Amino acid sequence: MVNILSLPLITGASKMKTVLASGSFDLVHYGHIRFLEEAKKSGGKDARLVVIVARDKTVEKLKGNKPVIPEDQRRAVVEALKPVDEALLGFENMSIIDVILQLKPDIIAIGHDQSYIEEEVKRIGIMIDLDFKIIHIGRFGPSDLNSSSKIRRKIVELEEQT
Amino acid sequence: MVNILSLPLITGASKMKTVLASGSFDLVHYGHIRFLEEAKKSGGKDARLVVIVARDKTVEKLKGNKPVIPEDQRRAVVEALKPVDEALLGFENMSIIDVILQLKPDIIAIGHDQSYIEEEVKRIGIMIDLDFKIIHIGRFGPSDLNSSSKIRRKIVELEEQT
Repeated sequence: MVNILSLPLITGASKMKTVLASGSFDLVHYGHIRFLEEAKKSGGKDARLVVIVARDKTVEKLKGNKPVIPEDQRRAVVEALKPVDEALLGFENMSIIDVILQLKPDIIAIGHDQSYIEEEVKRIGIMIDLDFKIIHIGRFGPSDLNSSSKIRRKIVELEEQT
Repeated sequence: MVNILSLPLITGASKMKTVLASGSFDLVHYGHIRFLEEAKKSGGKDARLVVIVARDKTVEKLKGNKPVIPEDQRRAVVEALKPVDEALLGFENMSIIDVILQLKPDIIAIGHDQSYIEEEVKRIGIMIDLDFKIIHIGRFGPSDLNSSSKIRRKIVELEEQT
């Protein structure tokens, strides 16, 4: 007879996977939703998706300008998305190594515009003894609306037309 | 012995409530999340939250300018939010009566900047024989970032500074 206590042993082969994704998520758009859905899917059934939301200072360093929405609100909006189990603020020094050591992800999802993260993650993979898989997630949505920067440019253009 | 078939009778007194909320949701922000969370909470445990996302033409008529994000993507982003059970596109003629007749909501949630919806909903309540409750949901977040129009203005200002 199957006992509830024996289930972890029975399903042991397919243990819950942790997927790690990250980003600025300044103006949340359809491309973000698809990125996070695909990231979660990559971990199979019952995967846990943890998202690192970049701090305001990190966004400014990386993109050259401040985010429109402050970090606490960007984090809260990301955590309110269905595929996301947990959203955490990143580290101000941009290093992802502490996050990886702490979360021990099985999979790290890299978006189409995140090659800088991939390089850093690969370096970390060589430095530390942790077995994780890197997956690439493609671009979604019409090309004019799949990034917060493009949405910002569109808003400025619309303003200039009026 | 409690039989699974008898549960609907036992729990009959607290039947699942449908809450209806609506909006443009052009640039999804923290104020939207809190609005939708409070709307859902107003229906109690197991409430179903249905959100009507305004069509592009409706947004243009109401606000005087086109939304930045097209209606299909705005709808998909709203449906990806945890409190939302279903997001539907509205009717182009701005009438909410068909939606109310079809969904028969128990509660209609009105946001702080939606007095035009409240007036229409009250008129409908007099016209049709349906018993629904109107609830008001307050403003959330810092006042400069609790509406898509304000976020648009902030983006234009940031652009002018650079």
